Amino acid sequence: MDEFSFIQSIQPKTYKRTNLIKGIGDDAAVFRPMYHDVVTSVDTFVEGIHFSKETMSAYDVGYRVLATNLSDMAAMGSTPSFYLVSIVIPKHWSEEELQALYKGMEDLARLYNMDLIGGDTVSGDQLVVSVTIMGEVTSGKARYRSHALPGDVVFVTGTLGDSAAGLHVLLKKEKGEDYDYVINRHRRPSPRVKFAKSLEAIKRLSLNDVSDGISSDVGEIAESSHVDLHIDYEALPIHSSLKTSFDKFLLRKWVLSGGEDYELIGTVPPSDWGRVEEAARKTGTRVTRIGRVEQAKGSTPTVFLHEAGTKQILKKEGFNHLKGD
Amino acid sequence: MDEFSFIQSIQPKTYKRTNLIKGIGDDAAVFRPMYHDVVTSVDTFVEGIHFSKETMSAYDVGYRVLATNLSDMAAMGSTPSFYLVSIVIPKHWSEEELQALYKGMEDLARLYNMDLIGGDTVSGDQLVVSVTIMGEVTSGKARYRSHALPGDVVFVTGTLGDSAAGLHVLLKKEKGEDYDYVINRHRRPSPRVKFAKSLEAIKRLSLNDVSDGISSDVGEIAESSHVDLHIDYEALPIHSSLKTSFDKFLLRKWVLSGGEDYELIGTVPPSDWGRVEEAARKTGTRVTRIGRVEQAKGSTPTVFLHEAGTKQILKKEGFNHLKGD
Repeated sequence: MDEFSFIQSIQPKTYKRTNLIKGIGDDAAVFRPMYHDVVTSVDTFVEGIHFSKETMSAYDVGYRVLATNLSDMAAMGSTPSFYLVSIVIPKHWSEEELQALYKGMEDLARLYNMDLIGGDTVSGDQLVVSVTIMGEVTSGKARYRSHALPGDVVFVTGTLGDSAAGLHVLLKKEKGEDYDYVINRHRRPSPRVKFAKSLEAIKRLSLNDVSDGISSDVGEIAESSHVDLHIDYEALPIHSSLKTSFDKFLLRKWVLSGGEDYELIGTVPPSDWGRVEEAARKTGTRVTRIGRVEQAKGSTPTVFLHEAGTKQILKKEGFNHLKGD
Repeated sequence: MDEFSFIQSIQPKTYKRTNLIKGIGDDAAVFRPMYHDVVTSVDTFVEGIHFSKETMSAYDVGYRVLATNLSDMAAMGSTPSFYLVSIVIPKHWSEEELQALYKGMEDLARLYNMDLIGGDTVSGDQLVVSVTIMGEVTSGKARYRSHALPGDVVFVTGTLGDSAAGLHVLLKKEKGEDYDYVINRHRRPSPRVKFAKSLEAIKRLSLNDVSDGISSDVGEIAESSHVDLHIDYEALPIHSSLKTSFDKFLLRKWVLSGGEDYELIGTVPPSDWGRVEEAARKTGTRVTRIGRVEQAKGSTPTVFLHEAGTKQILKKEGFNHLKGD
């Protein structure tokens, strides 16, 4: 592979954003934020740890790594604008595959009017893709996990467990009509950027994304906000193809702790629930009320799972039955 | 290694910058730029490619990777403010070593009042450290490689070839009194952030950092500005310990194409040369005039090396003798 021509080929020929002052080609990129606050995070994918060629094409790898970053921007209520890509390239990746990987990112970036403004391309033993993303948000409108208050409604977008089901099907090499849906959800998550942006009129809102599985992600809201969260298992949104195609035990595990669905989970005062529904309608996003926030009873903020009249403590790593309940 | 406690241990307990709104602990960090423009770049180091434990301690690896990023911020004339660290950790790196690596970054960051505001920690086969840096600059004051004009004076900070000499000594395991200086220059470069910032009053200025060796870095200014650059070999600043300790052929190679000195190279109108000298005095930085800018004679912008009355074309990969000159 000719490194120089490869780098040339992945560089954007034009830029989409008018607030970009200098793109790729100097010591660094320069942009002028259009809003007050800049939001930034980084996500790293390693071959053999976070993905494998067995279950994903190079295009999907690119698409998915940027999607996870976009999901972080959504969970902050911010508008993504720029990204930088650092890549470690091993010998067993061809130039065609690498170009497909960048195409996966580029196609998703186009949907959000984002520009690739920097990066680093180095060689190594194992493919590593690290994406730094930058977003912008109106002053004081960034959304945190720490803003939940007792009395709030808990909601989640989309459906849960799809990505884990997709990975399961891919690893078991199972074939079936309904599997296309879960496979696509695993490979091409839909970050809820527009939905989160549509919540801007809401004064107080806590927000997180479903990356590790809701047991963990809801727990982060409880912990950061020092409140208890009560979740109704029966209310959790599950796609019809999951209900019909899979074992109940697996399904339950995927829904509660599968993760990587890149949906949003949040809490709002009940008086703002109508606004959440309106944002969902406007952006074609499914949204479901799944529980409520209560004052923390003990010294440790706790998530409770209600199901068929029983109550369990939902721990980050899964769930433990609560004795005497 | 307990991943959770390691991540806890490398997270800052307090933040230094007042314009940071949210540090580590949510889906992303949030800051409010104090100046108009945000400057950003990423640099990635891979073990066995960019460094090895044979020549650098873990602390030095951390120090150096952040220093290279700081040098990019200097070359843009910007003030570095925040950084994010993505790290791929193989089994053969101990927790103590990793903590030393972060300490190397932290100690350098403290000198510049910078905060670590995000990152990702994953496992893999080979150590990879990728740092994204963010800086800020007054509107229109970012410095580019493309701003050189015929008539400009070419200058460079510090001395050239030190880092390559240091690496040579380390790889050959040579010992000598004068070697401490070059070894230290290799392991702990001094990014010229304060010097670059002190040039702010100068209206037009082209700037680049010495990362790949001046033959390449000067070439980038020529190319971006569509001008010819004429460099006087005898004027190039060389540290006394290099002159006394090394073979002349090696020395010449290191000075022209050694790279990784992380000095600044730039051009200004002759009328602003006094301001450059003043900035150098104020910040305790050595600065040397090394040549001049001329209109491009041919269709390809070219760098010429003048030496003992002869003139050669200085190419990116080294230097080619110009026939009949």
